[in-house]
Amino acid sequence: MSLPDKIFEIGKRRGFFWQSYEIYGGVAGFYDLGPYGILLKNNIICEWKRHFILPHQEMIVEIEAPIIGPEAVYKASGHIESFTDPIVSCTSCHRIYRADHLIEEKLGVKAEGKSPKELTEIIRNNDLRCPYCGGVLGEVSLFNLLFKTQIGPYTGDVGYFRPELAQGMFLSFKRVFTTMRERLPLGIAQIGRVGRNEISPRQGMLRLREFTIMEIEFFFDPEDPGAEDALKKVYDKKLRILTEDAKRMGEREPKIFTIKEALETGLIKTPWLAYWMYVSQEFLYSLGIPYENQYFEEKLPEERAHYSKQTFDQLVKTERWGWIEVSGHAYRGDYDLSRHSIYSKEDLSIFKQYQTPHIEKSLKIMINKAAVGKAFKSESEDVISALNSLDPKELKETLEKNGFITIKGKKITKEMVNMVEEEEKITGKRFIPHVVEPSFGVERLLYVVMEYSLKQKEDRYILSLKPSLSPVKVAVFPLVNDEKIEALAKSIYESLKMSGFMALYDDSGSIGRRYARADEIGVPFAVTVDYQSLEDSTITIRFRDTWEQKRLKIDELTEALKNLLEAKNIYSEIK
Amino acid sequence: MSLPDKIFEIGKRRGFFWQSYEIYGGVAGFYDLGPYGILLKNNIICEWKRHFILPHQEMIVEIEAPIIGPEAVYKASGHIESFTDPIVSCTSCHRIYRADHLIEEKLGVKAEGKSPKELTEIIRNNDLRCPYCGGVLGEVSLFNLLFKTQIGPYTGDVGYFRPELAQGMFLSFKRVFTTMRERLPLGIAQIGRVGRNEISPRQGMLRLREFTIMEIEFFFDPEDPGAEDALKKVYDKKLRILTEDAKRMGEREPKIFTIKEALETGLIKTPWLAYWMYVSQEFLYSLGIPYENQYFEEKLPEERAHYSKQTFDQLVKTERWGWIEVSGHAYRGDYDLSRHSIYSKEDLSIFKQYQTPHIEKSLKIMINKAAVGKAFKSESEDVISALNSLDPKELKETLEKNGFITIKGKKITKEMVNMVEEEEKITGKRFIPHVVEPSFGVERLLYVVMEYSLKQKEDRYILSLKPSLSPVKVAVFPLVNDEKIEALAKSIYESLKMSGFMALYDDSGSIGRRYARADEIGVPFAVTVDYQSLEDSTITIRFRDTWEQKRLKIDELTEALKNLLEAKNIYSEIK
Repeated sequence: MSLPDKIFEIGKRRGFFWQSYEIYGGVAGFYDLGPYGILLKNNIICEWKRHFILPHQEMIVEIEAPIIGPEAVYKASGHIESFTDPIVSCTSCHRIYRADHLIEEKLGVKAEGKSPKELTEIIRNNDLRCPYCGGVLGEVSLFNLLFKTQIGPYTGDVGYFRPELAQGMFLSFKRVFTTMRERLPLGIAQIGRVGRNEISPRQGMLRLREFTIMEIEFFFDPEDPGAEDALKKVYDKKLRILTEDAKRMGEREPKIFTIKEALETGLIKTPWLAYWMYVSQEFLYSLGIPYENQYFEEKLPEERAHYSKQTFDQLVKTERWGWIEVSGHAYRGDYDLSRHSIYSKEDLSIFKQYQTPHIEKSLKIMINKAAVGKAFKSESEDVISALNSLDPKELKETLEKNGFITIKGKKITKEMVNMVEEEEKITGKRFIPHVVEPSFGVERLLYVVMEYSLKQKEDRYILSLKPSLSPVKVAVFPLVNDEKIEALAKSIYESLKMSGFMALYDDSGSIGRRYARADEIGVPFAVTVDYQSLEDSTITIRFRDTWEQKRLKIDELTEALKNLLEAKNIYSEIK
Repeated sequence: MSLPDKIFEIGKRRGFFWQSYEIYGGVAGFYDLGPYGILLKNNIICEWKRHFILPHQEMIVEIEAPIIGPEAVYKASGHIESFTDPIVSCTSCHRIYRADHLIEEKLGVKAEGKSPKELTEIIRNNDLRCPYCGGVLGEVSLFNLLFKTQIGPYTGDVGYFRPELAQGMFLSFKRVFTTMRERLPLGIAQIGRVGRNEISPRQGMLRLREFTIMEIEFFFDPEDPGAEDALKKVYDKKLRILTEDAKRMGEREPKIFTIKEALETGLIKTPWLAYWMYVSQEFLYSLGIPYENQYFEEKLPEERAHYSKQTFDQLVKTERWGWIEVSGHAYRGDYDLSRHSIYSKEDLSIFKQYQTPHIEKSLKIMINKAAVGKAFKSESEDVISALNSLDPKELKETLEKNGFITIKGKKITKEMVNMVEEEEKITGKRFIPHVVEPSFGVERLLYVVMEYSLKQKEDRYILSLKPSLSPVKVAVFPLVNDEKIEALAKSIYESLKMSGFMALYDDSGSIGRRYARADEIGVPFAVTVDYQSLEDSTITIRFRDTWEQKRLKIDELTEALKNLLEAKNIYSEIK
């Protein structure tokens, strides 16, 4: 069995993940997480928080918005118009296919981003038929991927299951900005479920109809992003990037750029995008993905979502599916806040106070009304209004040069006009913040983490997860069937539970089988109680990755485990 | 401002919660959690895990199932048929009302559980009109509260947003049971969003269209629940219960029962139901709800959901809404697994191996065919078949008593039949497990916790949350605007962040205002850096609830905070 197949086998047999609704034959695109899967997922989320939220608390806060939203939101966001895939159905058996995928699969032609008309033409020109019954395919049309529903009892009140978390952050931006004391940059994070009504999802956990995203919408002033302090620490760090230009030249390998280079050459369009790409790279590294097995691919304009000015996908190499996307890094500009300002009629621009007011000098025209009145009598009103409509700067220059100016055939002399220089204090400005968005799919990461952890050793499979990611931290085994040994083992298990460890107690089968079972679900430490334990209050602790064993006093165990778990982490826990 | 109003004011202003889709005018029944709200919610969930999962790890595991499910599931669960509310619409302005609520509100008559026909009659007999336009109301009909959608591109493939978590556990029961080594009792826990398309939700966060549930489906053998060990520890503990009988007698106050009494008198129908009610009571107590402000109310049959054999609601006294339900404790019997067995055609019964095989003795009839043949010749086949259809026990008795038996007019003597006693080893039995379900609504708890924590002291409001529940654990303030003091304060803030604390740094306004701001969001500890700090590396730590201050060495701060946070918890963290 290949390693990836083994992951699915272990996933199902040991309780990590399996297809949902199994007893009803399963529904494509839905997966359950089992007991060990949800623990692993929660630990991945915790690791993400340790990288993205904890160290950035002064500028990033989490929120939680609902899944179901009203139609107005998704009109404004552009999803009702643009969140579509092309479909084509067979005129004979009425099976429905995703048109671009069908063309790519059957004809080997790139079809992403083409219009329904273009796709229909390709189908006609190549006489592409229904793969199931050979029937003639119809016209290609667009299928909206939003799950649609109705809110409340009135049939007109349409609602949608959110396809991304982002709208929740945009809609609450103004309130969060206010409660967080009106400072930029401001990141709003969210972790939650999204739904995308894929036409025919395949590839197991890779393309799901419902999954979990963890994401930040990071708001900043495009003229003054305030990224200096953050960037200072990472200017010389490296990112592996396959650029848009390189792609157009047909290259397929990423190149290495320092963050400084990437920003100075304009390869990455805004500083915070680079910063969060760097944090994302480190986050994946902490999950066990070596640098050489990850890179960022810049999307071509036709590959980008409708709201994006620039997008990088973060790719990871997998045995099962080759390079796959695990996160997206979109520069959404002011698209969303602007659209919601228009659609909701609520001004979402903000006022930014300058640290010190800007002084703006301006020229004002002060008309000597007495002199004008004297010269032009009843026509003086017209003259005054004409003078006021002139550009003060030009007027001043003309008067200084010629001593007069002719307006409507009337000669206005220098004496009739005073030019006054005024100073105005500008205390701040109104603008719509720009946004960059690092966004991760959790279930994909879960698969990737499992693929990178699963090792074969002799005849066994070991899930060598980093201890902080392991679903269960410690196993307790009584070495033999003996009442006293079992009682002691159980009391150790109970005290570990009460100290907050996810632990398991296993007394069935040989000790070798028990170690093997624990290794397979990635338990990093196993504690064995034997006859000696009864005499001198010690146990053996066995390490999953080295199969080493050490003897330890029972009353030192909890502390030892805490240290072992913290050893490789910057942050030991989130309090 | 009343305390409850103050909660909503603080909730909105300080970033705990607010109505969703505000900028589009809001949508009833949807709430956002802001930065402090989601932290408080996560801490409540963590406290729940500390009570329900951590100490019960050997029998309770968590899973995560999708929100969207296919129609087949909700046909089987009974929700398509029974998850309805009565509605009535105005024939003139077409506004829609929840019929039973309208009747209760306008006529003061109890209407819950009545049929559409009965409700229509009440409306007719009382000439109840549309409260908005005075128009005539139509016939009462049933409105299904499931949010409906379509899965994939085929219009027939109906799907629903789950209205409860439970089906996810029932559908995966068999797999989890297998992966968890086929032991009962087995609890499957889940935390996640559910949707209920309420007709006209009011009461702020109390009746939401989308909210979070944390719930356990606890499976056990009804003949041998295996609850002895768990119950042993709680037999003498007390529960406050308003029973069905007491309600029928018109009583409104709960009475106190020990768990032993409640089980022995049959008041609570199954042991695990009582056990989880007790844990729930302790859980609420740990959130700050005194015992005297909570009780369990038994639901009348007409108030119970369609799947329930017995249900208790756990009620909490609130200032704003009186007694409100925060959890439900349903004894679902084998309803769900039985229904899914029928609808999915997958046998969800399990085989339970007895610890030692049961020996079942049985009598068998052994016919002496030679003797029968000799006596009855061609009729012997008939005789044999008639003999075999007799009850062995009765046959034996008759033969022993009379020495013969007459069948079809034929005399069968003792010699023609041997009665043999056989022993059979029964190694186990097949059965469908029963289920009890403790189920909490998280957003309600969040409101309740805030109401019980908010105190007024002098002119200030203090959110006296237990430190483990506080969204932010520690605030750091430089006492005055001084570069060195600020630098030191910032370095302390950074090191607290890196030790994993949710912390905040505040240098604006007077120190008094900063304490007040921290008190209002429930920060239990505030650290102030002053001139003395520069000299002797100490800071003051100030306690939210007592406003006491203590001087502490900077390098002892992290450890001191850890101890302060752990002081009142059994479990300091979940690792």
